Amino acid sequence: MTARPALVIAPHPDDEVLGCGGTIARLTDQGVPVTVLVVSADLPPLYPADVRGRVHQEALAAHAVLGVTDSEFLDFPSVELSRMSVAELTGGVQRVVDRLEPATVFIPFPDRHVDHRAVFDAGMVATRPVGAGTGIAMVAMYETISETYWNAPGAEPTFSPNWVVDITETVGAKTAAFAEYDSQVQEYPSARTTQALEALALFRGSQAGMEYGEAFQIVRMLTGEQLPWQA
Amino acid sequence: MTARPALVIAPHPDDEVLGCGGTIARLTDQGVPVTVLVVSADLPPLYPADVRGRVHQEALAAHAVLGVTDSEFLDFPSVELSRMSVAELTGGVQRVVDRLEPATVFIPFPDRHVDHRAVFDAGMVATRPVGAGTGIAMVAMYETISETYWNAPGAEPTFSPNWVVDITETVGAKTAAFAEYDSQVQEYPSARTTQALEALALFRGSQAGMEYGEAFQIVRMLTGEQLPWQA
Amino acid sequence: MTARPALVIAPHPDDEVLGCGGTIARLTDQGVPVTVLVVSADLPPLYPADVRGRVHQEALAAHAVLGVTDSEFLDFPSVELSRMSVAELTGGVQRVVDRLEPATVFIPFPDRHVDHRAVFDAGMVATRPVGAGTGIAMVAMYETISETYWNAPGAEPTFSPNWVVDITETVGAKTAAFAEYDSQVQEYPSARTTQALEALALFRGSQAGMEYGEAFQIVRMLTGEQLPWQA
Amino acid sequence: MTARPALVIAPHPDDEVLGCGGTIARLTDQGVPVTVLVVSADLPPLYPADVRGRVHQEALAAHAVLGVTDSEFLDFPSVELSRMSVAELTGGVQRVVDRLEPATVFIPFPDRHVDHRAVFDAGMVATRPVGAGTGIAMVAMYETISETYWNAPGAEPTFSPNWVVDITETVGAKTAAFAEYDSQVQEYPSARTTQALEALALFRGSQAGMEYGEAFQIVRMLTGEQLPWQA
Amino acid sequence: MTARPALVIAPHPDDEVLGCGGTIARLTDQGVPVTVLVVSADLPPLYPADVRGRVHQEALAAHAVLGVTDSEFLDFPSVELSRMSVAELTGGVQRVVDRLEPATVFIPFPDRHVDHRAVFDAGMVATRPVGAGTGIAMVAMYETISETYWNAPGAEPTFSPNWVVDITETVGAKTAAFAEYDSQVQEYPSARTTQALEALALFRGSQAGMEYGEAFQIVRMLTGEQLPWQA
Amino acid sequence: MTARPALVIAPHPDDEVLGCGGTIARLTDQGVPVTVLVVSADLPPLYPADVRGRVHQEALAAHAVLGVTDSEFLDFPSVELSRMSVAELTGGVQRVVDRLEPATVFIPFPDRHVDHRAVFDAGMVATRPVGAGTGIAMVAMYETISETYWNAPGAEPTFSPNWVVDITETVGAKTAAFAEYDSQVQEYPSARTTQALEALALFRGSQAGMEYGEAFQIVRMLTGEQLPWQA
Repeated sequence: MTARPALVIAPHPDDEVLGCGGTIARLTDQGVPVTVLVVSADLPPLYPADVRGRVHQEALAAHAVLGVTDSEFLDFPSVELSRMSVAELTGGVQRVVDRLEPATVFIPFPDRHVDHRAVFDAGMVATRPVGAGTGIAMVAMYETISETYWNAPGAEPTFSPNWVVDITETVGAKTAAFAEYDSQVQEYPSARTTQALEALALFRGSQAGMEYGEAFQIVRMLTGEQLPWQA
Repeated sequence: MTARPALVIAPHPDDEVLGCGGTIARLTDQGVPVTVLVVSADLPPLYPADVRGRVHQEALAAHAVLGVTDSEFLDFPSVELSRMSVAELTGGVQRVVDRLEPATVFIPFPDRHVDHRAVFDAGMVATRPVGAGTGIAMVAMYETISETYWNAPGAEPTFSPNWVVDITETVGAKTAAFAEYDSQVQEYPSARTTQALEALALFRGSQAGMEYGEAFQIVRMLTGEQLPWQA
Repeated sequence: MTARPALVIAPHPDDEVLGCGGTIARLTDQGVPVTVLVVSADLPPLYPADVRGRVHQEALAAHAVLGVTDSEFLDFPSVELSRMSVAELTGGVQRVVDRLEPATVFIPFPDRHVDHRAVFDAGMVATRPVGAGTGIAMVAMYETISETYWNAPGAEPTFSPNWVVDITETVGAKTAAFAEYDSQVQEYPSARTTQALEALALFRGSQAGMEYGEAFQIVRMLTGEQLPWQA
Repeated sequence: MTARPALVIAPHPDDEVLGCGGTIARLTDQGVPVTVLVVSADLPPLYPADVRGRVHQEALAAHAVLGVTDSEFLDFPSVELSRMSVAELTGGVQRVVDRLEPATVFIPFPDRHVDHRAVFDAGMVATRPVGAGTGIAMVAMYETISETYWNAPGAEPTFSPNWVVDITETVGAKTAAFAEYDSQVQEYPSARTTQALEALALFRGSQAGMEYGEAFQIVRMLTGEQLPWQA
Repeated sequence: MTARPALVIAPHPDDEVLGCGGTIARLTDQGVPVTVLVVSADLPPLYPADVRGRVHQEALAAHAVLGVTDSEFLDFPSVELSRMSVAELTGGVQRVVDRLEPATVFIPFPDRHVDHRAVFDAGMVATRPVGAGTGIAMVAMYETISETYWNAPGAEPTFSPNWVVDITETVGAKTAAFAEYDSQVQEYPSARTTQALEALALFRGSQAGMEYGEAFQIVRMLTGEQLPWQA
Repeated sequence: MTARPALVIAPHPDDEVLGCGGTIARLTDQGVPVTVLVVSADLPPLYPADVRGRVHQEALAAHAVLGVTDSEFLDFPSVELSRMSVAELTGGVQRVVDRLEPATVFIPFPDRHVDHRAVFDAGMVATRPVGAGTGIAMVAMYETISETYWNAPGAEPTFSPNWVVDITETVGAKTAAFAEYDSQVQEYPSARTTQALEALALFRGSQAGMEYGEAFQIVRMLTGEQLPWQA
């Protein structure tokens, strides 16, 4: 029997690793096909013409580390996603969801980055429990180290995880995948470093009785058969 | 292989049916052992001496309808749970959790009924992800028709479900089990009626692409192996 | 003495029925003039050219069932309201409010549908307690079965009603009006069905001691004279 | 026709004036009977034996200024309400609600003062929409200058009013009633002063297009007949 | 030693006075340089051509009353800020932050006015704790009398202040500065009046043991050396 | 000039280290006197008779590592603080606050541990901005690794820090102090380990541009003179 696929929706290249890298590697280790859908690219005129191609190569290298089955790029303009036609942005995401029929979909938490909120919105619409959407068993939001922690407490939502995946065996793959993003990795102390990623994974795991964990906030879980972990 | 058990913690007899009746019946249909732990009883001097025994019999009859494996009764005094020794109340619940080693635990949403909040607190402590608690795959809160909808919006938390279980095949068992509680069933239009229960199940299901559903708000899901619904 | 009018603002045709159908029918039964303002239409290029006209006719038929006094259509493009000029969208709504001088205004809860949020915003601005707005006794948000229940708990607001109107006598008119929307009514089990609508009405009512109810979350109530229900 | 009564539940003497003084005076001006139920008294051993009697006299004088119809005192021990038997505290409040059959009930916002939270809980139970409770048209929470503003933002609920009553004509009666509480009035700048009370009333009113206002957060409004302000 | 500057970001001219006028005057009294950055102007075609210049003069007069060191005007079109290019709006604010290297930044609470939310977003991005942003000791949100109190409780965030600045000595300068805005000052009872401003200041102060206060909700405080108030 | 003291209120011995260890060490390094007030002890009959004394010695050793000026122990019974007389518990804390006249007070976040909530409540009352309380410049809540992360998202408050203190120079003292608590330190992977503490500090710091940080959620900051970090 073939496992049903999982889908990770990333506003920008590297968000899929920051938020779900360890879980992606676990899934692919176990034969679950994982598609990463990267929504935006750094395009002219806001960015030099060569940036898009360079980051694209980094993404493919990172995905190879994690065993990603399929990497798709919508190439919408980063920073300005919130000003795109709603129909066009959501439509782009919806088509991938409809074609893939995933069992699990990971979307970004709607945090400080306005692009994250636009992709969260598109992902929420594309995974509504209607039509094919009723076959999705889980929609969950991931945290993006840095932007998720730069919100305004009380005026914006706070990431409050209720699901932790044990990534003890794959935390190394997660940081290795992040290291492939030469253009994004920063010097410590900065939010975007392998040290910070590893510390967050250790912290999340330790609060759940695991060595390393990845934490998610669940949007919607639908259980049609028996509770799957009871099997 | 024997399935790991599920545990439903009910402040008062009937809460387990109102909140989880359909899911209990699904689980027992599939061979999952389900323990219902009833925390309180209506005891003198607040209640006449014969109430406890009568409701106890109703509970056993209701549990039989749902196929409940094991019914346990702590017989703490209803209405006054919040004034009990924290150690005694939590200890009573903790001992059951430790002995049972459940994969799933259902606890009440901390709503208008002060006993619900006391049992929520005890259940939260007894399922912390430490020691045996790290083996619990899911802790979830259920809604109790009536009390859950008599809160003060903005001053108290609102039940916001993120998990729906399809109970299309067992909604009849749920309402039949509730009907066994002669002492609790009321006349329509009242919150505690089979009509209201069925309407809520239809409403919850219809928002999730199911005919009838039971909705929960997840406290904590821990995934140690692969995402179970991906298998 | 002529009763002051009520205004229901609907992002799309049918939202006014889903959220307020029973209350509209009560009001018109009692001689209160009710205006329904439909903000958007399904227009080309996103929709075929004939859709707008067909849905328009359905709306008029539904409004006739409810006894709506006046049906107004702004015909802004559905799906893309959030990208319209703020001044144009809000201005369109404001002009109706200013002309009508309503005592009650119903606006959509800002839920999963991005158009609902745009119309919520416009409605909130148009009913501010300044100028003519100080004469509005009540602004309330209604729930839209489906979209209101497809939000992300904890990351988006949850509908938390604090006002229930008894619609026992008009729930039939509500479902009959919805049935006029041939293009919107779906097959059960789906969110947009008369079964789901009726179940929600029974559930809302039963939590408030009524046979059928319609629930609202209050934005602002202004009481200039005595508490009106004390009279 | 006799107007149905209103009930104001005060944890301590003076809370009814701080939170509802202007509204009480409006109601009694218009012939609505208003009962004030004072739940606690400052009793030995925490307080000297003469305090209770002195404050009792102040309360009667304050109530006379506002035209209160009936003043009831439960004389439970202040500061320690949260440790009372739930049945006894709630029962005390419930008996008054059941006897009075009020149309409107005002309860304190559950704020920094632990007694306020205990009385909020008791008031919430006593006004549930069951039995006689289905006849209550409005349950609302009032703010208590000082305690309501000494909470911990983000960790405790924030008072978010959605109802403003115009007290332009009775703000003077409100501050005069407060001035009767010699034992409670403090020196400016302090929270418990007529200056602060008047400033809050002016502020609340000015945000709602009134000269002076009193603000409430609604728990539950039930509308059985037509929307009363539409008449 | 020269004090590091403070920056107040105002969506429209007068917001800086309404939210921070007393604090600005305190800072400038003590020799701290304060820059006010006004983001928008009332421009054609939404406004007559002469409005921008007139309000600009009022702003300069108001700033003179408060001792503002530097007044900057981005002249983006008011009402429509939310539809601007994210890069352009944020870029405009970011350049001022980068050049100024402020120790404190005040931004508007994201309230009912859609422009306030757009400027809040831009201010949040421009003050992220990266690069020069790590030198900002405090980012705080201010309240804007009127818009901040016209939100929808439960569906939108409520201003919940956790910082009060004593403005007893400068509340007169605050209301005098506001009085310079002839085009904005309204008649009482209206939200935008010196009476309402003074009442709010008295209320905020009285809840904090001060004669007059200005209240803020903190986004982020970074303490690199010793706790500064301990010195 | 002598610096005004800081006060750290700990429900149980070790909470002060887990939540504030790095900040305490920074303060004492700079000559600020720091008092730690430990509210409870593990007493018979819930605990063996020798536990209290042993943990007491560990606390003194830990405090020595951090340079704590004064260690006070109220010796109220742990686990059962929530059932104590409100007057007695709050009174015990209030007396220390009144005597010490601190500039800064750290209290626990009201999290999963019911004792933490009781001490939070007592600390909130004891630091109200009345009388001597108006001299307190800062009241802040600290996080307690483990209990703070075992809450029920959506039903209980989530810790949302808005203040980060740089503890790069003292994180070693923090973990060394924790290591003195032989009876509390656990094996990794567990929440109560030096590894988890250090990971959290690195994570908190990295989100704020620091190598290691300690994060707090502010209850109330009062600024009577100039903004202290502007000096």
